[in-house]
Amino acid sequence: MRILKLTPRIEKWLLSRRAQRDDEAHSVASEIVADVRKRGDFALFAWTKKLDHLNLARDGVWISRKEMRSAERRVSAEFLSSIKRAAKNVRCVAEKQIPRPWTFETEPGVRITQRVSPIESIGCYIPGGRFSLVSTLVMTAVPAKVAGVSRIVAVCPRPNPELLAAAGLLGTGEIARIGGAQAIAALAYSTKSIPHVEKIFGPGNKYVTAAKQLVSGDCAIDLPAGPTEAIVLAAEGNARWIAADLLAQAEHAKDAASFFVTTSPSLAREV
Amino acid sequence: MRILKLTPRIEKWLLSRRAQRDDEAHSVASEIVADVRKRGDFALFAWTKKLDHLNLARDGVWISRKEMRSAERRVSAEFLSSIKRAAKNVRCVAEKQIPRPWTFETEPGVRITQRVSPIESIGCYIPGGRFSLVSTLVMTAVPAKVAGVSRIVAVCPRPNPELLAAAGLLGTGEIARIGGAQAIAALAYSTKSIPHVEKIFGPGNKYVTAAKQLVSGDCAIDLPAGPTEAIVLAAEGNARWIAADLLAQAEHAKDAASFFVTTSPSLAREV
Repeated sequence: MRILKLTPRIEKWLLSRRAQRDDEAHSVASEIVADVRKRGDFALFAWTKKLDHLNLARDGVWISRKEMRSAERRVSAEFLSSIKRAAKNVRCVAEKQIPRPWTFETEPGVRITQRVSPIESIGCYIPGGRFSLVSTLVMTAVPAKVAGVSRIVAVCPRPNPELLAAAGLLGTGEIARIGGAQAIAALAYSTKSIPHVEKIFGPGNKYVTAAKQLVSGDCAIDLPAGPTEAIVLAAEGNARWIAADLLAQAEHAKDAASFFVTTSPSLAREV
Repeated sequence: MRILKLTPRIEKWLLSRRAQRDDEAHSVASEIVADVRKRGDFALFAWTKKLDHLNLARDGVWISRKEMRSAERRVSAEFLSSIKRAAKNVRCVAEKQIPRPWTFETEPGVRITQRVSPIESIGCYIPGGRFSLVSTLVMTAVPAKVAGVSRIVAVCPRPNPELLAAAGLLGTGEIARIGGAQAIAALAYSTKSIPHVEKIFGPGNKYVTAAKQLVSGDCAIDLPAGPTEAIVLAAEGNARWIAADLLAQAEHAKDAASFFVTTSPSLAREV
């Protein structure tokens, strides 16, 4: 972490660095998406071997029941109770967010109705480059369950036991061992192994983001997430909590940026 | 209109024809968007001259107060009262759709709040190729007013008196004489004459749709609208009303398609 005095010049420099476009990511993702769209599993398996060093033909695309059960035995009881608590909180918020149906007559004989019905299937992209983000599964799968989505497909190239145990706990059974732009293309266009989903959720690296933008005309996406930018603004506060919030965002990826703006030089140093 | 017997083969043929991608539109829009983004008004004026045969440097980008007032005198009282009635109905629905703010505690000390605040500015793309679609203005500007959007910029290359009169009535004063992919690029990236807006609404031809998709990473869009597809499904009903609904959608553009599916051969012929 670096402490900088925030002047208009520093602000401008920080913002302009962050606003740079990544044409390289777009062109790489474009090649992968077109290939998976055209050649299906053949391309999906080849890109997974090349980029994630996984042999899907040998190990299988889907995480097996056995792997799930083995993961559940390997994680701590404390971890499972944290996930339960997080899921409960996310569930409360999601329930508040559901739009309500209504019907009324604008003029005699003209009845307008808002129906609220869930989409049928979603894909949850769980970033797995440096570690599987269990929080992403909680924040995508739980609202989908509340909304009534019937098929939730999670993808993560190298899911850790925590992710598998959380998936078991949340009742989202299907996890495919794929990631990157190739996973986005497979979910958007389907392959022999991977079903088409109606909407893709979850953040990823720059190639995943570019792929989501590329498929967005054919398959709905949540938003082009990232690179992460977080800012905490505080004149006073608990330095440990502030640091934890900044780190939680910074660990998303190498290009993530966490900012802390304060009028207190001592708090800045403590954080 | 053609009457076809709906078999699985006919259905497949119709759907596959509609699903064709338009790479030409994407490539044309791409060139225009990049040019307007780079050269601003210079490119906007040049493309408008080339494609819409308008001289913006001479006639001005914005519709003048004088033109607005003259239009108001040229439209019928019946037209104005229809617009008032339509706006009232759209307003009722928009008011129902506003999400409500809420606050609650998930755990002691953890308060979650949903704030609802309007975006600051929107662009309304009013298709003007064959005639200005007044309904688009009503359906985009009225909900924006209900939401509290403070700046509403409408664009239409050749607004007819009806559109100008409706804009006056609805209190959305700003109308720019631009259209096509160049108008979308100007609203997304701003030029000297055209302000940047936060979100672009409204349907257009295939070049407009392609341009909206191209800018969507930098400026929010409603959805890639079109080409229009409408379907009416009825075993019995008022043939005049069904025909009116089909025609209202078919008149969107040359590539619009309206379908009527019925089990009654006589109703099909009547429609």
